[in-house]
Amino acid sequence: MSDVYIVGVGMTVFGRFLDTPLKALAGAAITEALEDAGLARDAVEAAFFANTAQGVVEGQHLVAGQIALRDFGFQGIPVTNVENACASASTALNAAVAYVKSGQGDVALAVGAEKMNAAERERSFAIFDGAWDVHDVERTIATLTALGKDLPLPAGAGQNSGMRSVFMDVYAALARFHMHRFGTTQADIAAVSAKNHRHSQHNEKAHYRQPMTVEEVLAAREISWPLTLPMCAPISDGAAAAIVCSGQKARELGLTGRAVRIAATVMATGSDRRPEEFDRHLCRRAADRAYAIAGVGPSDIHVAEVHDASAFAELQQVELLGFCALGEGGRLAREGATTLGGRIPVNVSGGLESRGHPIGATGLAQIYELVAQLRHEAGPRQVEGARLAIAENGGGFHGIEEATACITILQR
Amino acid sequence: MSDVYIVGVGMTVFGRFLDTPLKALAGAAITEALEDAGLARDAVEAAFFANTAQGVVEGQHLVAGQIALRDFGFQGIPVTNVENACASASTALNAAVAYVKSGQGDVALAVGAEKMNAAERERSFAIFDGAWDVHDVERTIATLTALGKDLPLPAGAGQNSGMRSVFMDVYAALARFHMHRFGTTQADIAAVSAKNHRHSQHNEKAHYRQPMTVEEVLAAREISWPLTLPMCAPISDGAAAAIVCSGQKARELGLTGRAVRIAATVMATGSDRRPEEFDRHLCRRAADRAYAIAGVGPSDIHVAEVHDASAFAELQQVELLGFCALGEGGRLAREGATTLGGRIPVNVSGGLESRGHPIGATGLAQIYELVAQLRHEAGPRQVEGARLAIAENGGGFHGIEEATACITILQR
Repeated sequence: MSDVYIVGVGMTVFGRFLDTPLKALAGAAITEALEDAGLARDAVEAAFFANTAQGVVEGQHLVAGQIALRDFGFQGIPVTNVENACASASTALNAAVAYVKSGQGDVALAVGAEKMNAAERERSFAIFDGAWDVHDVERTIATLTALGKDLPLPAGAGQNSGMRSVFMDVYAALARFHMHRFGTTQADIAAVSAKNHRHSQHNEKAHYRQPMTVEEVLAAREISWPLTLPMCAPISDGAAAAIVCSGQKARELGLTGRAVRIAATVMATGSDRRPEEFDRHLCRRAADRAYAIAGVGPSDIHVAEVHDASAFAELQQVELLGFCALGEGGRLAREGATTLGGRIPVNVSGGLESRGHPIGATGLAQIYELVAQLRHEAGPRQVEGARLAIAENGGGFHGIEEATACITILQR
Repeated sequence: MSDVYIVGVGMTVFGRFLDTPLKALAGAAITEALEDAGLARDAVEAAFFANTAQGVVEGQHLVAGQIALRDFGFQGIPVTNVENACASASTALNAAVAYVKSGQGDVALAVGAEKMNAAERERSFAIFDGAWDVHDVERTIATLTALGKDLPLPAGAGQNSGMRSVFMDVYAALARFHMHRFGTTQADIAAVSAKNHRHSQHNEKAHYRQPMTVEEVLAAREISWPLTLPMCAPISDGAAAAIVCSGQKARELGLTGRAVRIAATVMATGSDRRPEEFDRHLCRRAADRAYAIAGVGPSDIHVAEVHDASAFAELQQVELLGFCALGEGGRLAREGATTLGGRIPVNVSGGLESRGHPIGATGLAQIYELVAQLRHEAGPRQVEGARLAIAENGGGFHGIEEATACITILQR
């Protein structure tokens, strides 16, 4: 099977852009990706468009990608709209790679764009209501509540939670299960958050760039115990894009100099497992498969972007990706191993918590960061000597784990 | 590039099923497809799920496919939700083929499921509101109205139009443009509709099975002149599925006996063209490319399923697919060439007008029909000697043509 490369990436600043149309966000990311690749728009033979919220927020569904891209000058090419909740953008990348590998064409665009902020805040939070089975919400909540029940709330907790995404209650329950089982502490989770907020100081495209200490994270407003506000990804607007290209075409066009090879792209959905069977978690299974395809292991990875929609999620993902033993994620953060300069830097971009989380764009924002790292163009946040990188992007919820996950391994 | 085959197909009856959950519809189509292929569920390595309306009708978006398939017993496999308006299901098929051709796996499922009927009828029609640029509706309507203006409405027309999809006004404007330019008559359009309603008598899975004469079609309630009710696809619920398999695996498993080869699957989006430049229509461009890939021409085709969301659409599509010269579509229908037993039978299933049009399932319902035809298992509606078939599936609207189109050529 022929190799496929990322030859260009682009990304808008993430933030709250009430007055910027989705098309403009998508267009800016695509423009940067094309310029980065040194390719004209006409070189793109197919596009895969990730978006999840435009139907809810603006009533635009069905052909969102065609409309966004057509106004930006793309004509005639196949456009596929993909949706996999918060993993939509890495799904678009996976589909773009399949398009190229299938021999349908040599150059494909994957773009994720999301405008989540709405004048009415309720509308933004409503986006998340569709991320699990709408016909089975009560059972889902009951299952998750049961997971968290062995760790009683501390005195005073649960009093101040305001409007929030349903996902934060999910993450809180999973966190309490982990805390009860492994002795993970709220301070460990805060260490993840403080690290990511510290990292994002150096990322000029991050939604937030304010460093925070562990103490500040712990003292912040509670969202759903043990999670406080800075431990949770914000509601962000933004877009990110990548141009993928067959190896043969990249060589023909002389694009291999800054190209990054896609060593593996693996998607998975969940399965029925007991809560304590972490080794059957969909992210573990997808990562194992991706490592096998790429012919590498966790200890070979130099830098990772993982799906820290909450700080707890990162704590668990570093275990599932094999950077430490199961249950050791808290220690890893506490000891600084995942910090820039540490053994295995994680979310050097600031992660979803601080770079921001426009859900349909996040997967490609992770890729944007890792491509910069592998090209050694990440400036003050560069991980020295990075040649192998992994991204983990999760989406939705079913039972006790994400409904879908996508693992991408990049190499240079 | 290795060949890819359809080794199994399934489809529910199409109709109005207010009390049947979407999952049950999807599950029934998948069960039939697996049984048809003689494969167990575990053989499926990836799934591509097409649905457009569940977000609008039920609030389920983001991970609709994962949720529908998981409840039906699928676990662990990659699931991608695709959306391309009324062309979503053929997009899912295209993605499944790319998955297999890319070497990621040998067996993939494409499924389209749609539940459009809602207790409140307004909600069903609201589905269509997202099918064009929601930020540019006025200009779109003005452009289309201008297209139809050269053919004045006859006396009494435009008085009785009730609640309808915005699409029918679009098709009516396009029809009037064609009538003015080529002398096509309302009776020609009615001939298409009468033929399809006649065809569906023999299709036990059709939404409607009542034969109609040209006179009955003309006398029916006006929707948007020149279109009357039986010229328009109904609001339907239903699901359809196909299992695709690499040639090598099909031979290993001994599935080649009833397998149908996918000779081409081509997607396209629209481009800026003048209304009279029919030869630049996206369906013409996609069809030309598909014919070239398959190494065949229009005169080689034995049977076709085309996207007759309105009867006028079929009249135009038979021209764009090259079954007659541009402007001759009316004559073709009038003279019976597209009828079962005619030179090139079109929509022997009854088409969208009479088989029904659950929009996320339609593309795979077309494939279901053509697979039956190529296997010579279509019973009383069998096209004699059919060995080469084409499907045209369109979706959404941008400017003066569909936002997207997908052409599939099948061979046995």
